[in-house]
Amino acid sequence: MESPIQSYLEQLLADVSGETMGTPYPIHPSGSAPDPQDFGICLATVDGYVYSVGASDKRFSIQSISKPFSYGLAMADHGIEAVDEKVDVEPSGDPFNEISLAPGTGRPANAMINAGALAVVSMIKGSGGKTAPRRIMDFYSKCAGRRLAGSKAVFDVEMRNSDRNHSLAYLLSSFGVIDDDPTRALENYLRQCSAQVTCRDLAMMAGTLANAGTNPRTGETALEIEQVERVLSVMMTSGMYDDAGSWVSSVGMPAKSGVGGGTLAVLPGQAGLAVFSPPLDAHGSSVRGVETCRRLSSDMEMHFVRAATGGNSTVKTGVGITQLPSRIRRTEEQAEVIERFNGRCRIIEVTGDLAFAGTESLVRAVSDLDEEVTLVVLDMQQVNEVSSLAVQMLDDLERRLAANSRQMILIEGKGLLDDTRLSADPGVPIFLSRGGAVEYCENRLLVALGADIGEPDRVVVPDSPALSPLDEWQRTRLVGYMEPRNHEDGDIIRRVGQRFGGVHFIVSGQVNTIASDPQGDRVRLNTLSAGMTFGELALGSDDRQETTEKAVGSVELMVLTPEAIEDLEAADPQLALLLWRALTRDAYLLVDRYLRETAVRLIY
Amino acid sequence: MESPIQSYLEQLLADVSGETMGTPYPIHPSGSAPDPQDFGICLATVDGYVYSVGASDKRFSIQSISKPFSYGLAMADHGIEAVDEKVDVEPSGDPFNEISLAPGTGRPANAMINAGALAVVSMIKGSGGKTAPRRIMDFYSKCAGRRLAGSKAVFDVEMRNSDRNHSLAYLLSSFGVIDDDPTRALENYLRQCSAQVTCRDLAMMAGTLANAGTNPRTGETALEIEQVERVLSVMMTSGMYDDAGSWVSSVGMPAKSGVGGGTLAVLPGQAGLAVFSPPLDAHGSSVRGVETCRRLSSDMEMHFVRAATGGNSTVKTGVGITQLPSRIRRTEEQAEVIERFNGRCRIIEVTGDLAFAGTESLVRAVSDLDEEVTLVVLDMQQVNEVSSLAVQMLDDLERRLAANSRQMILIEGKGLLDDTRLSADPGVPIFLSRGGAVEYCENRLLVALGADIGEPDRVVVPDSPALSPLDEWQRTRLVGYMEPRNHEDGDIIRRVGQRFGGVHFIVSGQVNTIASDPQGDRVRLNTLSAGMTFGELALGSDDRQETTEKAVGSVELMVLTPEAIEDLEAADPQLALLLWRALTRDAYLLVDRYLRETAVRLIY
Repeated sequence: MESPIQSYLEQLLADVSGETMGTPYPIHPSGSAPDPQDFGICLATVDGYVYSVGASDKRFSIQSISKPFSYGLAMADHGIEAVDEKVDVEPSGDPFNEISLAPGTGRPANAMINAGALAVVSMIKGSGGKTAPRRIMDFYSKCAGRRLAGSKAVFDVEMRNSDRNHSLAYLLSSFGVIDDDPTRALENYLRQCSAQVTCRDLAMMAGTLANAGTNPRTGETALEIEQVERVLSVMMTSGMYDDAGSWVSSVGMPAKSGVGGGTLAVLPGQAGLAVFSPPLDAHGSSVRGVETCRRLSSDMEMHFVRAATGGNSTVKTGVGITQLPSRIRRTEEQAEVIERFNGRCRIIEVTGDLAFAGTESLVRAVSDLDEEVTLVVLDMQQVNEVSSLAVQMLDDLERRLAANSRQMILIEGKGLLDDTRLSADPGVPIFLSRGGAVEYCENRLLVALGADIGEPDRVVVPDSPALSPLDEWQRTRLVGYMEPRNHEDGDIIRRVGQRFGGVHFIVSGQVNTIASDPQGDRVRLNTLSAGMTFGELALGSDDRQETTEKAVGSVELMVLTPEAIEDLEAADPQLALLLWRALTRDAYLLVDRYLRETAVRLIY
Repeated sequence: MESPIQSYLEQLLADVSGETMGTPYPIHPSGSAPDPQDFGICLATVDGYVYSVGASDKRFSIQSISKPFSYGLAMADHGIEAVDEKVDVEPSGDPFNEISLAPGTGRPANAMINAGALAVVSMIKGSGGKTAPRRIMDFYSKCAGRRLAGSKAVFDVEMRNSDRNHSLAYLLSSFGVIDDDPTRALENYLRQCSAQVTCRDLAMMAGTLANAGTNPRTGETALEIEQVERVLSVMMTSGMYDDAGSWVSSVGMPAKSGVGGGTLAVLPGQAGLAVFSPPLDAHGSSVRGVETCRRLSSDMEMHFVRAATGGNSTVKTGVGITQLPSRIRRTEEQAEVIERFNGRCRIIEVTGDLAFAGTESLVRAVSDLDEEVTLVVLDMQQVNEVSSLAVQMLDDLERRLAANSRQMILIEGKGLLDDTRLSADPGVPIFLSRGGAVEYCENRLLVALGADIGEPDRVVVPDSPALSPLDEWQRTRLVGYMEPRNHEDGDIIRRVGQRFGGVHFIVSGQVNTIASDPQGDRVRLNTLSAGMTFGELALGSDDRQETTEKAVGSVELMVLTPEAIEDLEAADPQLALLLWRALTRDAYLLVDRYLRETAVRLIY
């Protein structure tokens, strides 16, 4: 099933394509003019998944988007303080190719303007047999998770058009900010700017910054968190040239644009975003790139303030329902059907708050489910906050599932997702605990697979599974020792603390087993139906009832009282022996079931 | 126990007290000069807890820290766009009392400088029978969670010293940015600046912004998230006057200072911080306030980039160990001891990543435990990332616990907290699952409470609890039907799938019960010891072993084989009946235990 996030991005691409303002960067090797129609959007999550729409694999020059990465490399080489001595961290308010140096010292305002970038690149030296440009390209490659290369043709044409930057390099040299050959600094800078990347590469590079410096796909660490912190701080205030305040207010993600048409933005801890569209605005930023960032920040709640109120979350696509069965004791035939069609149901467990990252993971997990899964249970008991993005996406998911006769089921007890927030009709079933949801799914499976395997209405004592080891004559004789009893809806049949009152066989109707939890609240443990027994549990608890048994509707019972058992043991010890042996088996059948269930819980 | 975070703040206060630069704001009512020694730090978490050290309850004037709050109120009144028309969002680069208006329109650069604040306050009108200053004070009170009031004396002295602001108000009026009486705008502005707050009040106001606009203590909503997003964005770039870039890089929290000596900073989604110390630097910010923010951001990893890589987490101080017992079948006497001293052990469950907020919650939960709790189990199975702050705090907690003969026990299977990261000697026990940790705690309780209740080494069959319903003569007769068997360490005694092989009584040694989980991995379900039985479980599974039983060390058994049972039933049906009845009780004892355990899990 296509993910609603993928669909959202496709729609966004179509919407923003309507924006046709701007002009591509005019400087390029002859015969390779950028196509103003090219438009791609890629989003890389910190777990390494990449969404992509449009021209995500077309190559273009990284240009100024190289600046934050070289800044990071220089800090990794020399430490943050040494780089700070050469380059400040203040927004310059000047367009990217203006000269903005501190009076007296010539210290560039920040590493995102050309003067700062030239100073930074001059600090990166060759080492280990590798030249500086080689080390820079290796570093970008590590961030992108793929081997990148520069373009000689782009370098050459840029070199012929860089008088201004050449002047700047000499000026920086005159202040001693560049202590290397100024022309070599310029060349190295233009080489880094000529790196050929795709929109997907840039998204992975952004994802590496989002992921605290480690490429989410390769697991390779390019930068330490201290350096990432600094790179993103400077990008936040100075990444988008002269509209720092408006960028922070309206987008709220550290970002960097390049005249090659790329735009890169980072949601720390969550995702990296890249856009490719060549037409530029007056500041040299991609028109569609800026618009896409604004739209995504707002629609996907990616602004740093908004995203922080959410935080991380984990999504586990877990087990089917037979590994955590409901507390209804099913007949053998029913249990077999549930076991066989278990694959049609899947429980997905969500922890943490549903802001952008959590919502994205959840939506992806559901979208990736096999089409065979028709009952999708979202266990949201560990979720505290649900963003409006999440509500919208859950709504969308529900519609997509329903369109294929599949169903969403929620486990959520805090009212985060009540009817007023989800538009589904006839409504998504919401349960307070996993037991209720699993019971619902089991029933849906049984109903879907034919009424003939529904609950039997009536089971006479000789047909009770508990007595199956006895032969027919033995069972009939045993019934002679029993007395019939009838209860109405809501009757308390046995109460906690009462003495052992015999073995109760349910002939028709249903009985709820209720226990107290540690806080003294009552919990339903079991729903028993025709053919099942109760009351024996008291034998394991000093002959005292540990649970309360309550009639659900009219209930017809046959009871083998303690007195009848005494009579039986005296009059017919052989039959009594067979009864006890049958009860032992029945008890161990339960022990076995619980052991298997708790083994799953141990793992899960 | 004092929290390590409280101790950290006390140390920080002492350290930063060494900083004695700066001069308090000279304008104040006569006889009320600020005391340069006053110094307080308060930290309010989004769940409403407030840490405070030093002069946290001394009153002072809010001054410019009022600006972001009035900005929020104006946006709540008129919408963000209407306010944007009057005031821009760009950093001005100018000190707080400089004039920074856009050429032509007179639009102030942002709402954090005086010109912007005057424009903002002029937009706030009286309504519902309340004057504008009253509405402003009500709004601040809602953010602080306490009724605040302005100081007439401060207002009067400010009014006599505000020629510059008066001029500014008229200038704004000349541009039409203020459309009200300029003097009234100035008066309302000075009234808001005269609001008397404590450091604790400011921390709660910061906490309200951190908590998406809702006061974490009263639950009252002062602002919507859209307005909070905007307020914090502008604070991020323009809150600390003329060093925006350096503030974002080195502190990374939206902040605002006031000449009254207050400094307020916000970690969105996590905490609000306030500092009070009157001596000011050249920009009009508190010297110690700035230093405290820098130190906290670094030490507590509160920088927005760093904090985002962590995210929210939840900490639940949960149950003791009897509610989730280990899989060791204890003797009745042992079970009683564990039950009685259960209160000495507490399991704390942590979910999400341990960045600032999660670490703070965890540290608080442990610090708040009753001193009676000597075994503190931290279940960190759901934690993915552990910050170095968290490691340091856990280390500190461990030392504090150990100093009082209390112990920390970890459940964590990802190697996030191995020996190399925690300095504890002889080392914190780390378990892979809750079962192991609980077993350890049970054993510690048993050992601590006297060796006489340790595991019995040897239990002869007649003393086996399973046979307790039989009298001595009956038990002795039963032993006559059994055969002795001996096993060495590692022997497989029973294997999954084998037919029912009889009831096995353990005379000495230990036996592990091993099952397969859904992935086919082997899981230890139980450790059985002398006096216990196994093998009966096969009776509940079509006479097939569902588990494997493996000897731990040398094991001495007495086995009642299926053949012996047949012989017994034929020769002595009365005794056979008693045996089966005893086995039924024993089985239901287990069912009862599992039911109770799973009931807890249902709730928990």
